[in-house]
Amino acid sequence: MPIARGYAATDASKPLEPFTFERREPNDDDVVISIKYCGVCHSDIHQARNEWGMSAYPMVPGHEIAGVVTAVGSKVSKFKVGDHVGVGCFVDSCAHCAARDPDIEQYLPGLVQTYNSVERDGKTPTQGGYSDSIVVKEGYVLSIPDNLPLDKAAPLLCAGITLYSPLAHWKAGPGKKVAIVGMGGLGHMGVKIGAAMGAEITVLSQTLSKKEDGLRLGASHYYATSDAETFKTLAGSFDLIICTVSADIDWNAYLNLLKVDGTMVLLGVPEKPVPVHAFSVIPARRSLAGSMIGSIKETQEMLDFCGKHDITSDIEIIDIKDINAAYERVLKSDVRYRFVIDMATLAA
Amino acid sequence: MPIARGYAATDASKPLEPFTFERREPNDDDVVISIKYCGVCHSDIHQARNEWGMSAYPMVPGHEIAGVVTAVGSKVSKFKVGDHVGVGCFVDSCAHCAARDPDIEQYLPGLVQTYNSVERDGKTPTQGGYSDSIVVKEGYVLSIPDNLPLDKAAPLLCAGITLYSPLAHWKAGPGKKVAIVGMGGLGHMGVKIGAAMGAEITVLSQTLSKKEDGLRLGASHYYATSDAETFKTLAGSFDLIICTVSADIDWNAYLNLLKVDGTMVLLGVPEKPVPVHAFSVIPARRSLAGSMIGSIKETQEMLDFCGKHDITSDIEIIDIKDINAAYERVLKSDVRYRFVIDMATLAA
Repeated sequence: MPIARGYAATDASKPLEPFTFERREPNDDDVVISIKYCGVCHSDIHQARNEWGMSAYPMVPGHEIAGVVTAVGSKVSKFKVGDHVGVGCFVDSCAHCAARDPDIEQYLPGLVQTYNSVERDGKTPTQGGYSDSIVVKEGYVLSIPDNLPLDKAAPLLCAGITLYSPLAHWKAGPGKKVAIVGMGGLGHMGVKIGAAMGAEITVLSQTLSKKEDGLRLGASHYYATSDAETFKTLAGSFDLIICTVSADIDWNAYLNLLKVDGTMVLLGVPEKPVPVHAFSVIPARRSLAGSMIGSIKETQEMLDFCGKHDITSDIEIIDIKDINAAYERVLKSDVRYRFVIDMATLAA
Repeated sequence: MPIARGYAATDASKPLEPFTFERREPNDDDVVISIKYCGVCHSDIHQARNEWGMSAYPMVPGHEIAGVVTAVGSKVSKFKVGDHVGVGCFVDSCAHCAARDPDIEQYLPGLVQTYNSVERDGKTPTQGGYSDSIVVKEGYVLSIPDNLPLDKAAPLLCAGITLYSPLAHWKAGPGKKVAIVGMGGLGHMGVKIGAAMGAEITVLSQTLSKKEDGLRLGASHYYATSDAETFKTLAGSFDLIICTVSADIDWNAYLNLLKVDGTMVLLGVPEKPVPVHAFSVIPARRSLAGSMIGSIKETQEMLDFCGKHDITSDIEIIDIKDINAAYERVLKSDVRYRFVIDMATLAA
């Protein structure tokens, strides 16, 4: 069995530490990938610390994987050695369901997550991208366009698709007014992708501290939600509000920023339920919805879109030895806008 | 000024009582209607008793009006004396907005409600259908198909359109599974209209006491929500759930009955906010939405649809002198399925 080196959480309360483990022997439909970069997602922290109560240890987090193909099985036709590839939040799914509707694969039962999950054999734990290599079925490997640098492309595999999917599903485009709530790892991707789709983007952030960035990345407007005037000025303005924050904000105030038939989409998971007043939705036929990553088909579509529009993430490269300090900075929103681990530092 | 007789609330805490008042002198674009029947809507009670804090007195409630044209202004072209007509929840709107988008007229500013509102002159109070006549602008008068008896057709003007609009908007039809929550004045219309649209209808009611009716009216299935098994059996089943109740039910249990991309629509106004758990919507891209009556254009479409499919309300005819007792029975859900006032009893 091929040996992989990485960093793992061994317990909910301990820092991540170096960890050596086995990857599976490649099957004839597998792609072997040398991981060059892996993005750091907030959900890595939730899971490493068992904050969703579903964690198994040891756990190698990481589902924003960018690397280079080093070997392919005999039946692999889409990839060859040397190709730039990515792996996102899942590495297998129920073949029956995925075939039934490849557009909503991510919502169907049987998804095998890239880490903190078990393979479809029901027992082998999956391990993620904070490591030097991974073996993934061809159908779950994404092609990263050659014009995108691998380090900056890595966060597209989760943050990118998490924003692209709702923007595409709810038809962001020319003539549409879209608000992105929160200007972090997810939010800044929403600004870039939404603007490239042709929508008029407004950032709603707690303060104006990242306003210059927001406008540079493609937003037309930037408002501070700490200013009560914002909610008066923008009442009834948006076709779509994409909410990337998980803090307990004044949800009904945001719903009231929607036009008739507008939709607010939750991407983050607030600790408390979202208290929707009937009068926030009934008198304007508004909706509150949720969205989660995207199918493999849509993730490839997103990567091709980003290749065409030269869209990547704004990142801060880190040494894997600094992963625990990076986690603390993520929790303080002290990163512009995504940490990406340089996997070469594993060998250092 | 023409004199009208009716019943009015004179105060939030007093029973309705006989009331004589003036209707406006008809303008050249007005239709004068002899009211034959008026349905009793739960919102009549909310407003008569000032439960929404927006009531002005004296108030003649009633917005499920069915009658016969007795005179038309010189510029009226769509109606003539003797026509069967209806008036619903509003009798005017912002001409500019309505022209801008006649499909969402009911959600635009400037709506003049049939009662407990003021005309577009900003001062004249509107008075509703618990009366013997009304004067309404041609553009807000609906044509009731001749094959529908006026008494049973009256509730279509609010209960009918309130269900038709979301069923049509969210595309209930062949191949769609639709749940109607609550088997009352609204719910029973949802069963009839949804079934006529070709959707597979399931009623979710507290008990099975009205099961026979539900199946007779067009439902394929009928489940008691007091039985916890219902929520296991039906998990992930519905494309659309139309919620006609305003009690504080276990909202997330209902959201979990939706398929991927399913929508639950609130029609009633629960006293407390609806607490939406992020995990009820995110992992299946579900939505919680609201809907309110329909535009004049859509209300006419609904009446034509009901004419074609011979759909009316199941009603209990009452003498207007029994209106206060009827209110008490509505509050106890003791009516199958709508009270309709026979306006001939005003003269008795």
